[in-house]
Amino acid sequence: MATEQGQVPDAYDDLLEEYRRATYLSDAGGVLGWDQQVMMPEEGTPARSKQSAALSAVQHDVLTGDGIADPLAELEEESLPEPQSDVVREIRREHERSVRVPRDLVERISEESSNALPVWERARAEDDWESFAPVLETFVELKREYAEHIDPEKDPYEVLFADYEPYLPLEHAERILERLREELVPLVEEVRASDVDLTLEFDGTYDEDDQMELSRDALDALGYPWERGRVDTAAHPFSTGTQFDARVTTRFDESSPVSALGSTIHEFGHATYTLGLPDEEYGTPLGKHRGLSVHESQSRLWENHVGRSAAFVEGFLPRIEEQFPGLDLTAPGLHGHLNRVNPDNLIRVEADELTYHMHIVLRFEIERDLVRGDMAVSEVPAVWNERMEEYLGIRPETDSEGALQDIHWSHGNFGYFPTYSLGSVMAAQLFEAAEDEIDDLYGQVREGEFDALHDWLTENVHRHGQRYRTNELVKRATGSEFTADAFLDYATAKFGDLYDL
Amino acid sequence: MATEQGQVPDAYDDLLEEYRRATYLSDAGGVLGWDQQVMMPEEGTPARSKQSAALSAVQHDVLTGDGIADPLAELEEESLPEPQSDVVREIRREHERSVRVPRDLVERISEESSNALPVWERARAEDDWESFAPVLETFVELKREYAEHIDPEKDPYEVLFADYEPYLPLEHAERILERLREELVPLVEEVRASDVDLTLEFDGTYDEDDQMELSRDALDALGYPWERGRVDTAAHPFSTGTQFDARVTTRFDESSPVSALGSTIHEFGHATYTLGLPDEEYGTPLGKHRGLSVHESQSRLWENHVGRSAAFVEGFLPRIEEQFPGLDLTAPGLHGHLNRVNPDNLIRVEADELTYHMHIVLRFEIERDLVRGDMAVSEVPAVWNERMEEYLGIRPETDSEGALQDIHWSHGNFGYFPTYSLGSVMAAQLFEAAEDEIDDLYGQVREGEFDALHDWLTENVHRHGQRYRTNELVKRATGSEFTADAFLDYATAKFGDLYDL
Repeated sequence: MATEQGQVPDAYDDLLEEYRRATYLSDAGGVLGWDQQVMMPEEGTPARSKQSAALSAVQHDVLTGDGIADPLAELEEESLPEPQSDVVREIRREHERSVRVPRDLVERISEESSNALPVWERARAEDDWESFAPVLETFVELKREYAEHIDPEKDPYEVLFADYEPYLPLEHAERILERLREELVPLVEEVRASDVDLTLEFDGTYDEDDQMELSRDALDALGYPWERGRVDTAAHPFSTGTQFDARVTTRFDESSPVSALGSTIHEFGHATYTLGLPDEEYGTPLGKHRGLSVHESQSRLWENHVGRSAAFVEGFLPRIEEQFPGLDLTAPGLHGHLNRVNPDNLIRVEADELTYHMHIVLRFEIERDLVRGDMAVSEVPAVWNERMEEYLGIRPETDSEGALQDIHWSHGNFGYFPTYSLGSVMAAQLFEAAEDEIDDLYGQVREGEFDALHDWLTENVHRHGQRYRTNELVKRATGSEFTADAFLDYATAKFGDLYDL
Repeated sequence: MATEQGQVPDAYDDLLEEYRRATYLSDAGGVLGWDQQVMMPEEGTPARSKQSAALSAVQHDVLTGDGIADPLAELEEESLPEPQSDVVREIRREHERSVRVPRDLVERISEESSNALPVWERARAEDDWESFAPVLETFVELKREYAEHIDPEKDPYEVLFADYEPYLPLEHAERILERLREELVPLVEEVRASDVDLTLEFDGTYDEDDQMELSRDALDALGYPWERGRVDTAAHPFSTGTQFDARVTTRFDESSPVSALGSTIHEFGHATYTLGLPDEEYGTPLGKHRGLSVHESQSRLWENHVGRSAAFVEGFLPRIEEQFPGLDLTAPGLHGHLNRVNPDNLIRVEADELTYHMHIVLRFEIERDLVRGDMAVSEVPAVWNERMEEYLGIRPETDSEGALQDIHWSHGNFGYFPTYSLGSVMAAQLFEAAEDEIDDLYGQVREGEFDALHDWLTENVHRHGQRYRTNELVKRATGSEFTADAFLDYATAKFGDLYDL
């Protein structure tokens, strides 16, 4: 970390050591969270809530303590070289946001979040919005309070959004979301009007264990390093960990043999980002991801631009046929199936690449209005259902298929959803640049060769950690500002092709 | 917690709240440890070491901080009622021991311990003492340093022993161990001379998954509450958790269909103790186990007095035959097999109830001499092999079967081993008392009825947490001081019977 002439002051080293401690504690909390969702027996919640809350509180104490504040104050006068100045910028930002939030509020949010998980799970299983509503009320209040502590002058939703995407103004995000809605709604309508039906029907039941084997093989094929990861099942698939241990989860639907591939490859994409962060920077801002939009760009890139490509399907089809003999698939048939647009689908995590963004826009609008106080919790299910009708022409019959379907609000994660669409859009821009620079990229994908793509992504995205701001990172990697152009070109061409538009 | 007249001062509540935080952090560390041994991918170690060390350090900060010290000082003058006075005694003891150990030493021990695990695993796999020796050297030094901080006047081994068994003087423990050696060595010799051979030979291979099913059924039969626990495999089986989530691990040997039952039931016994601690006292000394001897008494009671009993074998045999058809077993045959004494066995965790204690005496002597500086690390393998010959008449051919076999020293856990024998001895005394008080206890065991035994143990042992000191707890439960009498009576009768002595 020290520069050639050793100009980096001691305060910088002190700052980094203390900041690392905060990261270690935060990552310990990550392990507790993984365990809670993947391994913990059901009655473990009361104790786990206490443990997670205590951990959040001590992490908060470290981040806000003199061990961070004093060296930051000392460094205020210093003009540091890069990348040390970037490191200090990131720590300062995190410190300042933390200082403003009282410890007991952090602790309450963490504890409520642990307690809420089983409430949400039960409410969703039993289609019981009423039992979930108080949880959501609590989180709206807690998170408004949280935002007010951070910046009482600002729109609280903007403040919360910056927790997940610190370096993209909310306006910029809104412009992209609006552009998606403008261009994709008519495209989805065209698809709806098309005679093409890409859906394959699968008869019978496809055992979860067999599907897990197939998921493992897909991970193998894509180059997942098992010595630094594992795959398990979870109600809501996610990825978590560090560059030394980046885990993925997936889930199965026994009515389709390829039900899990999308989410497995999606979470794999997240894990590649984590694994591509530099080992030696573990614990520092240079060893951490840039933000959720960039994170999501990696998952979407692998899920959509690789996993759903004709090339990958051709290469991987023999393995699917081996696991499930007698399926009688063709590569174009499966490729179509994996890319079918289903405007009638109600569930975000099962949505296709086009309608997905309408699911996000809807959530974004609702959570923004909730946080701003422009909507009551009791209105959410009705507004949800109306907007689904407006944007996609469908209406959920139950809240389990509507406003209860996602885990995010049960954790109070308002401001998170937009990063999904931003990530998809960014994925297209990054993949376009990778295609320009890698010789016959889709030929390599067809052959099961992913090294060049991994290297390009590591070199241009992963290895930088938080050194560059979001837009700067995209610009360095692709040569252009972050816009929706590449995604819309890609989507129009791809779905135009598939649906004879 | 408050008494009728509300005489408990505010300082007591403050103390308890802060102490609970320390427990939560410690239990979070327990989750990380479980994950590391059961779930973590192999290259996760560097990050996990940092996380665990940071967690130990903050827990240490809480225990030693003003949040504990100030109310303790205030309460010094107070004469508290029971059980509050017991609670304060326990917290004071823990606080004082922690205050004396500098934070960076705690952190180093935790970090070394994480780093050492794969070193030990590899050394054992490759029979390579030389690669493990530096780890052991490091821990001898670190733990001597640790003991010196706690009490420079005392024998360092005595100080370390009190970490695991705070309320039994080392002398008392040594007397019990010596008595075991005196009485059991001749008993083992008689067994060796006997013509009776109780060993059953199993042909073939018994699949791990099938054995896991059998282990799950044994746990079911014994009343393991799955909503508060789970079973997995680990290289070195252990149990960990809280009253809300007490997990067990086991391991399999594919050459015997009943290989895992002993360790499964042993770890179940540990878990019953954890699960029997009062929910509402989670985090306080009244919600924590008394110490490792009492803990081990619960595992040994279930493993030996229940699981290896003729009554349990009769009741559970049909389930074994169902899982592994065609075994052609009889209840007396299997009972004999499970209780066979094998003086030629070199491995502690596979040892029978009699020779087991010689394995412990040997480790106790070596670790005591190491810690006292009376033995060098380089001498350990030779001394180990000599003592095995002296006590059991056998000599390991490799260190993997000798001084490398146990995980304990790779964590620096000196003083832990004696609690295994003390626990066995205590188990016999407790079970004798339970038999006196429960109508036809073995009849119930035969019928698969364990409620009365669970209730008796919860009532007399578990629910008290740390309210009573070890000897007091045993005395309240059994009416007598803690001695080896019950165990020696039991062992002499049982093995006299089995071996026609």
